Amino acid sequence: MRAVDIIRKKRDGAEMSREEIEFIALGAARGTIPDYQLAAWLMAVVWRGMAPAELAALTDAMVHSGEVLDFSPLAGAKVDKHSTGGVGDKTSLVIAPVVASGGLRVPMISGRGLGHTGGTLDKLEAIPGFNVNLSLGEFRSVLEKCGCALIGPTPEIAPADKRLYALRDVTATIESPPLICASIMSKKLAEGIDALVLDVKTGNGAFMKQEHEAEELARLLVETGTRMGKKTVALITGMDEPLGRKVGNALEVEECIEVLHGAGPADLRELCEELSAWMFALGGRTKSVGAGRDLAREMIATGRARDTFRQIIRLQGGDAGVVDDPTRLPRAKRKTSVTAKRAGFVHAVHCESIGMASMMLGGGREKKEDAVDPAVGLEIEKKIGDAVQMGEAICIVHYNSEARLAEAIALLERSFEIGSGAPRTVPLVREIIGAEKMH
Amino acid sequence: MRAVDIIRKKRDGAEMSREEIEFIALGAARGTIPDYQLAAWLMAVVWRGMAPAELAALTDAMVHSGEVLDFSPLAGAKVDKHSTGGVGDKTSLVIAPVVASGGLRVPMISGRGLGHTGGTLDKLEAIPGFNVNLSLGEFRSVLEKCGCALIGPTPEIAPADKRLYALRDVTATIESPPLICASIMSKKLAEGIDALVLDVKTGNGAFMKQEHEAEELARLLVETGTRMGKKTVALITGMDEPLGRKVGNALEVEECIEVLHGAGPADLRELCEELSAWMFALGGRTKSVGAGRDLAREMIATGRARDTFRQIIRLQGGDAGVVDDPTRLPRAKRKTSVTAKRAGFVHAVHCESIGMASMMLGGGREKKEDAVDPAVGLEIEKKIGDAVQMGEAICIVHYNSEARLAEAIALLERSFEIGSGAPRTVPLVREIIGAEKMH
Repeated sequence: MRAVDIIRKKRDGAEMSREEIEFIALGAARGTIPDYQLAAWLMAVVWRGMAPAELAALTDAMVHSGEVLDFSPLAGAKVDKHSTGGVGDKTSLVIAPVVASGGLRVPMISGRGLGHTGGTLDKLEAIPGFNVNLSLGEFRSVLEKCGCALIGPTPEIAPADKRLYALRDVTATIESPPLICASIMSKKLAEGIDALVLDVKTGNGAFMKQEHEAEELARLLVETGTRMGKKTVALITGMDEPLGRKVGNALEVEECIEVLHGAGPADLRELCEELSAWMFALGGRTKSVGAGRDLAREMIATGRARDTFRQIIRLQGGDAGVVDDPTRLPRAKRKTSVTAKRAGFVHAVHCESIGMASMMLGGGREKKEDAVDPAVGLEIEKKIGDAVQMGEAICIVHYNSEARLAEAIALLERSFEIGSGAPRTVPLVREIIGAEKMH
Repeated sequence: MRAVDIIRKKRDGAEMSREEIEFIALGAARGTIPDYQLAAWLMAVVWRGMAPAELAALTDAMVHSGEVLDFSPLAGAKVDKHSTGGVGDKTSLVIAPVVASGGLRVPMISGRGLGHTGGTLDKLEAIPGFNVNLSLGEFRSVLEKCGCALIGPTPEIAPADKRLYALRDVTATIESPPLICASIMSKKLAEGIDALVLDVKTGNGAFMKQEHEAEELARLLVETGTRMGKKTVALITGMDEPLGRKVGNALEVEECIEVLHGAGPADLRELCEELSAWMFALGGRTKSVGAGRDLAREMIATGRARDTFRQIIRLQGGDAGVVDDPTRLPRAKRKTSVTAKRAGFVHAVHCESIGMASMMLGGGREKKEDAVDPAVGLEIEKKIGDAVQMGEAICIVHYNSEARLAEAIALLERSFEIGSGAPRTVPLVREIIGAEKMH
C-alpha cells in the first residue's frame, strides 16, 4: 500500500477502505508517512469529505493508534463531556465534581486555550499548585479516589491525532467536519468511557458560527460515538455571548465556585445542570434527564459537589482552600471599567472580540508557546437583554500590564451593541441531537 | 505573510495576490516553507484551480526563482519545442538539428522518462559517449557553435519547480492544469527563448487522454506564454498509437536518423516537419508555416540537418559515427515476435501498455532511480489501419533479459485490437491553438 495512491483516491472523491484509512492513521502515529503526504491527504479530505464508514474507520484507527484506557474494574459508569469551546465556557470544573459526587466516574482529558477560546487546563492551573500533568497511573488513582480526574494530553493517548492535529493547524485543514469529529472522538473514546455528552457551541463566539454547521458536526459526533458502541448525545448551545459573567482563568474558577455554592449566573448554572443531567441519564445513574437534573441540583445544594471539588484539588496537588476562600486565587493588580456610550438594551455581544480582548490582556494565547497570566480577565456587567444607562459600566477589565490595555478596551467598546427596545432572547440549549435513542 | 493564510485563502476558493504567489514560489525555491505546507497548498490548487492572473504570477515567480538564461548576444531567434510526452515520441532529436541548420537557435533543456513515457535525455544517452550533463557555460558554447544544444535539468533553472514537482509526484498533485502549465512554462521560459511550440498529446498513451483536456492545457500554455511576451503556439496531436514504429532508446535514435536521411515512418516525419515549420514561422525565419515546412524538408533533403546532428553529437562528447552507421548504437542480444491471433485490421493500439511493456524489458523506469537498458525496445510492425494476417508479426521485441519477457509479451498481445474492415483513421495534428495570432 502506498500513501500516494490513497491520497489520489481521496482527491478523486472515491471512498477509502478501512485498510487504507488504518494505513494513514498508523503511518501518522508511527511516523512512517511523511508530513507532506499527510498534509496533502488532509487537504483532500477537507475537499471531498468522508462517508460515514470512512469516518468510523478513521476514528477507530486513531483511537487504537495509542493506548485505550480501561477503567472497567472501577465501579460506576464512566462518562465524560466535551465542548467545542467558546468564551467563558467553564462548565467542566462544575460538571466533573457534580457528576462524580452523584456516583459516576468522570475521567476527563482536556486541552489548553488558543486564540479567543479558553482551555480547561489553563483554568485549573489558576488554582495554586494544581497539577494537570499526571501520568496515566496517577490519573487512574485520582479517578478511583474521588470519582473524577482532570488532566492534560498524554503521549499514550491517540498519537495519530497529535501528529495530524499539529499538521492541520499549520496547513489550514482544521475546518473539516469529519476531521474535527475524528479528532474529538478519538481522544474521548480512548478515555475508556461508556457514555459521552457533547456541548456543540454555535454563534459568533463558536468555532461553528452557523447553527446548521453545529448541527452537522453534532450529528457526525453522535453517529460516530454510537457506531463505536458509546451512548452519545450532543447539545447544541448558544455562544452568542460569553457563558456566565467572567472571562479569564482565575475569574472563571471563581465563578465555578459560585455555582458550586448554588449561586453564579443563571446561564452557566443552567448549562452545568443540563450537561450533568444528560451525563447522569446516559450513564444509567438516573432513569430520565429530569431525574438527572434533580440529582445535579441536589449535589450542589447538599455541598457534596463542593466536597468532591476540594478532594480533586487536593489529590492533584492544589490549594483546596480556594473553594471556600476564592481570594486565594491569583488577582490582577488593577481594574478599570468599560462604559456604555448610549442608553438602551444590549442587543448583541461580539463574543470572539471579548475573547481576543482577554487574550490581549495576557489571559489567553496568541501562539501555542505563549504563557498565560491567570489573574487577568473581564467581568461582563451587561448581558444580552440587559438595560443599560449611558456611562454605566458594561464590562470590568482586570489587568496587570498596560501594554495592550488601550487596544483591549477599544475592542471591548466595539464588542457590545446597544439598541433601543428589549431584544428577543433565544434559549441557551437550542437542540438535542441523539436524544431520540434515549426514549 | 504566513503560508497557512495563503493555503486557507486558496482552500476557500479566493484568488491569491501576486505577492502571495511569489511568497510560495520563493519559499519553495529557498526552502523557507516546509514541505507539508507546500503539499497542502498544492492540493488546494488541484481543488480550486487558478485564475489566469494567478497562473501568470506563479509561472513568473517560478521562472525567476532561479537563473534566467540570456542568449540575446547570439544571432538568430531562440526557439524551443516542448512535448507533454508519449510513447515513441522522439521528435526533439530530429527537430533540434533541422531548426538549427535552418538558422534558428534551439537551447533545449529536456527530461528523463518515467513509467510508460520515454525521455529525450535517455534517448540521447543511447548514443555512445553523449553527455547531457553540461554546465550552463558548456550549454551556451555548444549552442553558439552548432545552433542547438540538448541538456538535462540544471540546479540553476527554476528551482521552485524542482521542489514543487518532486512533492507533486508523491502527493498525487500532478494532475492539475495550472500546476502542469506553470511547471512546463517556468522551465522553458528560463531558457531565454523568444518563441515556443508546444506539442500537446491526446489519446490513450497521453497524459491528457481526452481531447478537451489537451485543449484546455494547450490554451493555458499558450495564454501563459503569450502573457509572458513569448510567441507561443500549441499543436494538439494524436497519441493513440506510438509515434513512428520504434520504441526504446537506441531504437528511437535509429528511427530519428532514418528521418534525417529522408526516410522513416510517415507519422514521425510529418510531426517533425510540422513542429519545425511552426518553429521557423514563430522564430521569424520564414513568413509562413508553409514556407517553414518547405525549409524543414530542405534541411533534411540537403543533408544539412544531418551535418548539424553530427556536430552536436561530437560537441557533446558522443560518437557521431552513429549518424551514418546506426549499428554503432547499442543492440539487444535477442529478438522475438508477437503475432496476430486473428486476421483483420488494426483498430486500436493500447499505447500506454506498449510503453509499459518497453519499461518491463528494462527500456524505461518504474521508479526515478531505476537504470535503463538503452538497447531494448520494440518495433511496431502494424499500425492503426494496417491489414494483418493471422500469425503475422505485429511487433518485434528486442530484449536482453528474460526476467519479465513473458509478462511484456502478454501485455503486447493485449495491446493490439484487431477487427474486421479498415477503421476510420484520424489526422495526427488535430488542432492548432494560438495560431490566430499568427495571421
